[in-house]
Amino acid sequence: MRVAFQGERGAYSEAAAIELLGDQIEPVPSQTFTEVFRAVTNGSADRGIIAIENTLGGSIHENFDHLLSNDLSIVGEHHFRVQHCLIALPGVQKSEIKKVSSHWQALAQVIGYTERNGLAQEAAYDTAGAVRLLKESGDRTTAAVASRRAAEVFGMEVLEEGIEDNSENFTRFLLVSREAVPAEEPLKTSVVFSQDNKPGSLFRAMAAFALRDIDLTKIESRPLKGKPFEYFFYLDFLGDAKSGPGERAISQLAETTSFLRVLGTYKRSA
Amino acid sequence: MRVAFQGERGAYSEAAAIELLGDQIEPVPSQTFTEVFRAVTNGSADRGIIAIENTLGGSIHENFDHLLSNDLSIVGEHHFRVQHCLIALPGVQKSEIKKVSSHWQALAQVIGYTERNGLAQEAAYDTAGAVRLLKESGDRTTAAVASRRAAEVFGMEVLEEGIEDNSENFTRFLLVSREAVPAEEPLKTSVVFSQDNKPGSLFRAMAAFALRDIDLTKIESRPLKGKPFEYFFYLDFLGDAKSGPGERAISQLAETTSFLRVLGTYKRSA
Repeated sequence: MRVAFQGERGAYSEAAAIELLGDQIEPVPSQTFTEVFRAVTNGSADRGIIAIENTLGGSIHENFDHLLSNDLSIVGEHHFRVQHCLIALPGVQKSEIKKVSSHWQALAQVIGYTERNGLAQEAAYDTAGAVRLLKESGDRTTAAVASRRAAEVFGMEVLEEGIEDNSENFTRFLLVSREAVPAEEPLKTSVVFSQDNKPGSLFRAMAAFALRDIDLTKIESRPLKGKPFEYFFYLDFLGDAKSGPGERAISQLAETTSFLRVLGTYKRSA
Repeated sequence: MRVAFQGERGAYSEAAAIELLGDQIEPVPSQTFTEVFRAVTNGSADRGIIAIENTLGGSIHENFDHLLSNDLSIVGEHHFRVQHCLIALPGVQKSEIKKVSSHWQALAQVIGYTERNGLAQEAAYDTAGAVRLLKESGDRTTAAVASRRAAEVFGMEVLEEGIEDNSENFTRFLLVSREAVPAEEPLKTSVVFSQDNKPGSLFRAMAAFALRDIDLTKIESRPLKGKPFEYFFYLDFLGDAKSGPGERAISQLAETTSFLRVLGTYKRSA
């Protein structure tokens, strides 16, 4: 199974794909999220894995827009625990390191660690890319901050694991596919809809779920282009779009919306 | 009145502050949104103006977080129509221009225009900054894409106005202050709250408004740090936090929330 992900080999997305699907997958590195969606749409990949939300940074809004503008199905999700590693050339001692290099978001998540250890920070365009560049440079005084997977891919050494300041650092990934696939319990469903701008319209949409005791796990709004200050709403709920209370909720939801699309039903991540 | 804004003189935020408050204000340029909040908090500015949402790009999430972590009141809002100008050195003809320079978001909004006119694009760190740099360079083949205000500030010439591809380009700005100030009708109120994670909890929160026919104009979620996949909700409604149905709705809302803060009641922008 060819799985497209944003980033280069060793990226956190690749590690998430392997945790979710096993290490027999064929990773397809892609420069941008646009390319991930394109690869799945045109068949050069069987699945795409995309980051949709991080517990510290929030939603990756670009990918909500891609879900709407591409005709793919969500067929899986995975909550990935982001664990930053201090990665150096083989044989280098921790005491030799003076500086760390990584993507600025990763650097922001290890500020406490680098300050405690008197290490300077240097921004790179990508976490796995920082490991590759470090390997190419042969620099023994610099360490990269990236995933364990990145160290493995480039034959580098993990000096320390879990150096992030906040351990509640999870990224939720979604798996997308051209075709829906049957999913195992427990099920989650994602939908996107828009409504005419009337008082109480969003409340009526949510009633379809609340009155059936269906748990909403996420609601996100994105601007509706061409209609200033109106929105698309993305909503996740626990249940199936095709049977039981979930199906009936969606059919009631359709009565209150001007646009409605089911993005997919998939197995909920633990 | 000293008004802090993010960017340098001539930034769109400065133009928005002048539209909202008149041209007698004393603009206080600030490098970051963090500095804008700090300037108002420590009294080196009387007001701060911050971009909170754009109709094409969506919410500026950083500023939702700043509203929560700073103890300021929202005392105004302004819907600013973003009109990009083609700005050159005085005396330069449009036919001499080969290239435009601006912030990447502004460049993205004039792609159609630059392609139709065969102009290359060059990224700068800031729209008004691109005008300043152009002036300093004396380059007659480059134009900057920025606000009319930026051309005025730097004594440059507007060759064409309204070159953006999509005219539905509005930015919503909020005005913040250390103290709440009495507001004129029509009123809008912003609140932020969190809830225990139970089915139907957000629905119950919204019932406080829907059952009183109070119009919600915006709902936004941001991650609750330390509680993975739980959220703060930011909600705007038409009405007053201190009287009438708005006050009663907030008092009902408080019964369904574990945390609730009124960010301010202010005059709604047209």
